[in-house]
Amino acid sequence: MGILKLSELIVGQEADCFALLSIKEELTTREGKPFWKVGFRDAGREITSPIWDNSSWAADCRQHWAPGVFYKLRAVYRESNFGPQLDIRRIREVVEADAADGFDPAMCLPQSQFDPQQMFDELLAIARQRIANPALQNLVESILQGHRELLLRLPAARRNHHAFVAGWLEHTLSVTRTCVYLADKYADYYPQLKPPLDKGLVVAAGILHDIGKLREIDPQPSGTVYTAEGELVGHILLGRDVVRESPASAAVDADTRLRLEHAILAHQRLPEWGSPKPPMTPEAMIVHYADDLDAKYAIMAGILRDDNRAGPVTTDKNLLRQKFYRGLEA
Amino acid sequence: MGILKLSELIVGQEADCFALLSIKEELTTREGKPFWKVGFRDAGREITSPIWDNSSWAADCRQHWAPGVFYKLRAVYRESNFGPQLDIRRIREVVEADAADGFDPAMCLPQSQFDPQQMFDELLAIARQRIANPALQNLVESILQGHRELLLRLPAARRNHHAFVAGWLEHTLSVTRTCVYLADKYADYYPQLKPPLDKGLVVAAGILHDIGKLREIDPQPSGTVYTAEGELVGHILLGRDVVRESPASAAVDADTRLRLEHAILAHQRLPEWGSPKPPMTPEAMIVHYADDLDAKYAIMAGILRDDNRAGPVTTDKNLLRQKFYRGLEA
Amino acid sequence: MGILKLSELIVGQEADCFALLSIKEELTTREGKPFWKVGFRDAGREITSPIWDNSSWAADCRQHWAPGVFYKLRAVYRESNFGPQLDIRRIREVVEADAADGFDPAMCLPQSQFDPQQMFDELLAIARQRIANPALQNLVESILQGHRELLLRLPAARRNHHAFVAGWLEHTLSVTRTCVYLADKYADYYPQLKPPLDKGLVVAAGILHDIGKLREIDPQPSGTVYTAEGELVGHILLGRDVVRESPASAAVDADTRLRLEHAILAHQRLPEWGSPKPPMTPEAMIVHYADDLDAKYAIMAGILRDDNRAGPVTTDKNLLRQKFYRGLEA
Amino acid sequence: MGILKLSELIVGQEADCFALLSIKEELTTREGKPFWKVGFRDAGREITSPIWDNSSWAADCRQHWAPGVFYKLRAVYRESNFGPQLDIRRIREVVEADAADGFDPAMCLPQSQFDPQQMFDELLAIARQRIANPALQNLVESILQGHRELLLRLPAARRNHHAFVAGWLEHTLSVTRTCVYLADKYADYYPQLKPPLDKGLVVAAGILHDIGKLREIDPQPSGTVYTAEGELVGHILLGRDVVRESPASAAVDADTRLRLEHAILAHQRLPEWGSPKPPMTPEAMIVHYADDLDAKYAIMAGILRDDNRAGPVTTDKNLLRQKFYRGLEA
Amino acid sequence: MGILKLSELIVGQEADCFALLSIKEELTTREGKPFWKVGFRDAGREITSPIWDNSSWAADCRQHWAPGVFYKLRAVYRESNFGPQLDIRRIREVVEADAADGFDPAMCLPQSQFDPQQMFDELLAIARQRIANPALQNLVESILQGHRELLLRLPAARRNHHAFVAGWLEHTLSVTRTCVYLADKYADYYPQLKPPLDKGLVVAAGILHDIGKLREIDPQPSGTVYTAEGELVGHILLGRDVVRESPASAAVDADTRLRLEHAILAHQRLPEWGSPKPPMTPEAMIVHYADDLDAKYAIMAGILRDDNRAGPVTTDKNLLRQKFYRGLEA
Amino acid sequence: MGILKLSELIVGQEADCFALLSIKEELTTREGKPFWKVGFRDAGREITSPIWDNSSWAADCRQHWAPGVFYKLRAVYRESNFGPQLDIRRIREVVEADAADGFDPAMCLPQSQFDPQQMFDELLAIARQRIANPALQNLVESILQGHRELLLRLPAARRNHHAFVAGWLEHTLSVTRTCVYLADKYADYYPQLKPPLDKGLVVAAGILHDIGKLREIDPQPSGTVYTAEGELVGHILLGRDVVRESPASAAVDADTRLRLEHAILAHQRLPEWGSPKPPMTPEAMIVHYADDLDAKYAIMAGILRDDNRAGPVTTDKNLLRQKFYRGLEA
Repeated sequence: MGILKLSELIVGQEADCFALLSIKEELTTREGKPFWKVGFRDAGREITSPIWDNSSWAADCRQHWAPGVFYKLRAVYRESNFGPQLDIRRIREVVEADAADGFDPAMCLPQSQFDPQQMFDELLAIARQRIANPALQNLVESILQGHRELLLRLPAARRNHHAFVAGWLEHTLSVTRTCVYLADKYADYYPQLKPPLDKGLVVAAGILHDIGKLREIDPQPSGTVYTAEGELVGHILLGRDVVRESPASAAVDADTRLRLEHAILAHQRLPEWGSPKPPMTPEAMIVHYADDLDAKYAIMAGILRDDNRAGPVTTDKNLLRQKFYRGLEA
Repeated sequence: MGILKLSELIVGQEADCFALLSIKEELTTREGKPFWKVGFRDAGREITSPIWDNSSWAADCRQHWAPGVFYKLRAVYRESNFGPQLDIRRIREVVEADAADGFDPAMCLPQSQFDPQQMFDELLAIARQRIANPALQNLVESILQGHRELLLRLPAARRNHHAFVAGWLEHTLSVTRTCVYLADKYADYYPQLKPPLDKGLVVAAGILHDIGKLREIDPQPSGTVYTAEGELVGHILLGRDVVRESPASAAVDADTRLRLEHAILAHQRLPEWGSPKPPMTPEAMIVHYADDLDAKYAIMAGILRDDNRAGPVTTDKNLLRQKFYRGLEA
Repeated sequence: MGILKLSELIVGQEADCFALLSIKEELTTREGKPFWKVGFRDAGREITSPIWDNSSWAADCRQHWAPGVFYKLRAVYRESNFGPQLDIRRIREVVEADAADGFDPAMCLPQSQFDPQQMFDELLAIARQRIANPALQNLVESILQGHRELLLRLPAARRNHHAFVAGWLEHTLSVTRTCVYLADKYADYYPQLKPPLDKGLVVAAGILHDIGKLREIDPQPSGTVYTAEGELVGHILLGRDVVRESPASAAVDADTRLRLEHAILAHQRLPEWGSPKPPMTPEAMIVHYADDLDAKYAIMAGILRDDNRAGPVTTDKNLLRQKFYRGLEA
Repeated sequence: MGILKLSELIVGQEADCFALLSIKEELTTREGKPFWKVGFRDAGREITSPIWDNSSWAADCRQHWAPGVFYKLRAVYRESNFGPQLDIRRIREVVEADAADGFDPAMCLPQSQFDPQQMFDELLAIARQRIANPALQNLVESILQGHRELLLRLPAARRNHHAFVAGWLEHTLSVTRTCVYLADKYADYYPQLKPPLDKGLVVAAGILHDIGKLREIDPQPSGTVYTAEGELVGHILLGRDVVRESPASAAVDADTRLRLEHAILAHQRLPEWGSPKPPMTPEAMIVHYADDLDAKYAIMAGILRDDNRAGPVTTDKNLLRQKFYRGLEA
Repeated sequence: MGILKLSELIVGQEADCFALLSIKEELTTREGKPFWKVGFRDAGREITSPIWDNSSWAADCRQHWAPGVFYKLRAVYRESNFGPQLDIRRIREVVEADAADGFDPAMCLPQSQFDPQQMFDELLAIARQRIANPALQNLVESILQGHRELLLRLPAARRNHHAFVAGWLEHTLSVTRTCVYLADKYADYYPQLKPPLDKGLVVAAGILHDIGKLREIDPQPSGTVYTAEGELVGHILLGRDVVRESPASAAVDADTRLRLEHAILAHQRLPEWGSPKPPMTPEAMIVHYADDLDAKYAIMAGILRDDNRAGPVTTDKNLLRQKFYRGLEA
Repeated sequence: MGILKLSELIVGQEADCFALLSIKEELTTREGKPFWKVGFRDAGREITSPIWDNSSWAADCRQHWAPGVFYKLRAVYRESNFGPQLDIRRIREVVEADAADGFDPAMCLPQSQFDPQQMFDELLAIARQRIANPALQNLVESILQGHRELLLRLPAARRNHHAFVAGWLEHTLSVTRTCVYLADKYADYYPQLKPPLDKGLVVAAGILHDIGKLREIDPQPSGTVYTAEGELVGHILLGRDVVRESPASAAVDADTRLRLEHAILAHQRLPEWGSPKPPMTPEAMIVHYADDLDAKYAIMAGILRDDNRAGPVTTDKNLLRQKFYRGLEA
């Protein structure tokens, strides 16, 4: 039997799939009938099904199945009054040999629409072309290279925006591109600014503004969790730590390093959003706007994609607590 | 005697100048000695001097001199303990014939660093190239052309930012350029957005976001004043009126016109900044960010230029109520 | 069998009724037993009942019944553990001929306690007696007459207050009466005010303060919905549009029209409540207080009527987020 | 020489007047020339003049003149570059015998435009006619009668609004009249309210809402000062004390007394305005609106009377921190 | 059969217990099967069980069982898929004679960890040792003694903190001890303060700061409810009333009594927390900090005890709307 | 002639003093008469005097005198209409040999009332006795010892509180003592807390909470200035840096170090006061309250000492924007 993707099954189809057990909860109906609610997911779909107490899988489920573990399933995909369900025929944990059949843990998580490696390379290329100050360029490059493996898969958040594999890269590259545009533009507009706008610093701060997510977020296969220091300190301060602790920072002059640290600290602008200081330099101001628009635009796009309230506007029960407009035809 | 610019006089020099009487106030010293404080300005400098009661100009000043009137002066430029002063030798009102000697009322007001006509032409060119919808393009162009004379000199504000001749154009063109960049970028990033981002609408709203200043601001030669409807209604709503009252708006489809009106209304984002609704469309969101950054950057540049507090940071007694950093060497 | 009102049926009674299908949702019990939850309402009562999968109405319900449609029902009214239910015996869509039996779509919506036509006439009478300026009086009257049909049934809101047929009229008439009282009173108290209080303008603004609801609200028989421009622009600005677009506004002098527009814009006072400017004239200030009290009083009366928490105070889970007192005996 | 009112002198006129010494400050010019700034006032005008060190009044001023003391002056009223001034010819403290010449300390303080005794009588009459509950009526009347002497002259505030002799009465009577109107109106509008609106209680709370100013404010002839308990407790709580401590309150039933106390506590509505609870009864809600409008209207009228900024709107440097509109002709 | 505590039963055990019927709600399953949800509690455990319609207890439950009543039960304690349940064998209301078997209504409510009588005695002892001013000491003591019975069992709140029998005493004693420490400390640190810190007043205000809860809270055996005056006036003002109405307050000098009243009023510091004035004296400031820390610490300890979210931090769905840290091992 | 302290001179006395030139500003009178305003200060008094253009010191002042430099003066102390003034007879810069006559730069700055060395020793002693964890104790001690010289003179702020030599020590020792008390107390009150309160950590965080002021503040002899990193990063984050960069921190276990860093970050509690996270641990909560009370108490004591407004309360024009009570007799 062929191996298909869970998210590509059609109703009634029986197939083998690889999937992550993402949910396992013990529940009872109001009448006291106990059952397990289990969820299996790949990158494109998550399906929850009940395992009733009298099911042949009940004992197995209770004793062995574990959330965060990958399974190979043979199942029939059905529609029910509860929505889609899986009728499980066979199930076993994934083994190493499954890699030969195409198993890859990443296939069970949502992905960036862009290739992580290409995004990483482009970020590096921008750093090399746009940061004239060699010490600063070296600092940025050494931080990127030093965390390459993790950055290729780090999400930007658990839920808010770019909450998928390589979301950090997708968001950071987009912010950095806007930084390149705006730095060029405003350096031209205000040539008399003293000291002049440091265009390379805008780019460096754009690349590193969210680098603290390396320490705030722990991207498990079964989902993103926040670290203890992420909760007690927060990515904004942790990002400044990454810069300060990099051996390459010693070569950067004090004024530039202070401006870089400040731009990281100030990128959320408001204290209630986590920035202890507002942007106090032209460089920090540009990074804030490039970042804020990119995050809000992504959130809005997600709301417009997911909200299915009738009428021309979405509900305001969303992350931004406001309605969005879909158009007169919607 | 040659005619020089007031702002180019050097200490001790005597010359003829054209200048605007910008200030005339009757004051007394604490001992009861009365005097007139008068100010003369051109685009680059404003000089205030006392006219003492026993001065030969006292009667003339009291009875004839009027703020907002242009004068031809012969004067010596002096430094005093009060700062620079003018020692007036001759003074008369400007007459038509002075135009032949180079008088132009605009020479007494601060100017944009860019040529108004070129900016206007570029704005038109962007409208023609970037707004694909012909009815929308026509609406934008007809509004620009219909108010060409005023837009060539309209400031963007009395004080806050771009408070100079053609400040509206300088700010609007800068915002519109950013809109072009961001519209292209985000249309590429979110191709699946439904309905798709209307790039032409982003540009149209960028051009028209502040068009209500036409009705809010009255740019007198002697200074900018706010109109009654500017005070009681505000430029945000007045800008929507300009669009609604344009005969060219009838040809624009209802959905697009509503989105355009909304983007104008929402461009300040927060109700306490005057926007009754937050940006509820992708187009309005982009315009808000492009505008907000351009305004804040201009304010910050002004603060860094004007603040002369000692130390590495400016004071926070400014429009943004925060300190800005000048650098370790400052 | 006689035709009775749904809201007048008593337990065990079987009768024919006209009713609106207000709710139709597909649900399942936790055990997977599917059913339809359907609701029928008239002006005074809404009853929800399950249609089980094995009911004889199941197929009909699934395929044909539609929310927002009026039906003629023969049903028995029962009490159950789920609350009141309808045991349906016959059901068909309402047809034109049912009007002869007393069917009127309005009978299925909650109504003002006052007669719409009488309220409309009184509003007109107040306009004629209390607005001395003929151009202003004519403007108010022509707007009222021009939208007479809609105003006779327009609610003031979907939910907040006066959310019933002719709610706009009930609220507007009450506000206007208070405006008449307060305008007389404060004109007497502050005779030296410059310019003097324009009593007719207070009345005109009282009548028109919520006129934008004409464009914000779409009163469907099956319930009130908000229009796209209602969502993106809001009734406060749309009300000013109604005035500006009325041909009768041309005859009103500029100062009076600006004050009228301002009073409409400012009637909610705070930017976060939708008013871009606070009341800046005596007339606008009076209208704000008259409106605000009338709306809040109506909301409070509804809370005291509907809240059934035990003890002397209501819960604070209501629109005003505060508790209200019912008295020591409650 | 005839005795005239200070506020009726014309330029150049010499006359005898009674006046309060309202200001006495020792100052020096920047050059070190010392002088006394003294102010004399009656109800309609306050005039400040310098007493120079070499003046014949210098020693007398330094040693004897005291702020808060009444004087009989013979003086010439002059215009100077400092504004109006008094050229003092004779000066002595007021003596008892001056009463025969018309001296009355009240003549030196600004007064209500209405007669205090008439206002007091009308307030009593309203209490008698509009408070049906005899115990409540008696409570109100006994509080009014018990503080009659003070209430006839108490201002409503030092500065904010109704800051003049009998200002408390003027404001309270106005609020109470509005309460009568609104109580009648809303009792009719919501006949089904449970418990029904207590119209007499609305009136009683209108009369007593500011009664705590008796203990908060100390109206000295030379100006209003705040008492220690006014500063540390505030008039809202002190007003409830007045009610609780009145022997007449014992006869009022518990529910009514609690509602009355609550209406006094809640009349400012917001905690940051001093009300620990928002209006939680219909009675308290009406009193709040009647009071708030009356206070704000008085403040606005004062701003429109006093602000002399050029242009159609006032400055926003006032108690309400907003601009007001004077009209297109202003 | 022995009488055991409900909270000490083990699975499968049958025993007689005294318990409070704390919950009785009529519900139905989604299929329409009706049942009663009943809850029985003692101080350490609350158990909810269904009484099905066909149970032998159904009629008894429907007709006789009443929340807030104490029962003697014979029951088997079982674990089910719904959690713990009681299988009731016998049930009757508690009678007087049960006291002989150890019944005490207090045994069914959560208790302070400390002995109420000892805490009361210690509070008295502190008052006697630490309040040097005899009139003030007498006032405090007479209020404590006058409400001894109620204070021995009063909780500090229904839910927020110290919401158990004698919670008022536990919280008050803790606050008072901190007041003793801080008063000694800051009197030493700022010996030059004028007037000097009144250490006895700090202690008196610490003891009395929450005395208004006597009138705000009504501690029923079946749970804490708020009184009408608690809802409409609040414990902060009611506490000041208790002081003012105590006959012993007359002997206290005016300044001290005003400071005491103020410290009670100001103890929550912010108007939105119910204090109409902020702490304006050193004594009030110390009481505020001692109280605020004690309340917040208790809430935090409760959150850390009860929250069972996985990971190093708690959820932020709690009274303080923030996360707390449990440690890396948690 | 004997050397006296500037702050001990009496009127008319001539003496030699050491003083800091704290102010030098060039001003003119309104008539154009130029003068220098100069200020001399020692720890207890600051005296400003004019140096007129025609004074014999004018040239010297203009060319040589410099703010921040210490001078030996011979001067007569006079009262004038401008307040106290110095009539300078001789003036020269301080030289090394003046130390023999008792000159010490510290004598010109306000000092803590306690001996810095004793406070430092006590802080060390507390660390040794109260921090049981040896690695944590060592970290605290090594940081204190490593910055001993600076800490002996560091103020806690430029203006807000403890703005004098050794102000950091005075404030830190006071906070630490309160931490000792509260840690003991709450460890006893909540023995079941999990994990248990780390009393040593409370003390360590109390000692180090403001350690970042080392890098934020630059205590010059002529006054306190803020460093660039102080302005752009702030002492809260810089204090965490001090801990992280100490070699002794490596020996502290990860959980304890994270809690320590967090307590430093969270000690101001609110984001708008600079803390990016609120106190999320029991230790951080205690430190916050101990610090906040100590700072606010010091500010209040300063206001009560300095404010000289008449009446029972101070003005609210102070750092805390509220009035304070001085007592009925004041």
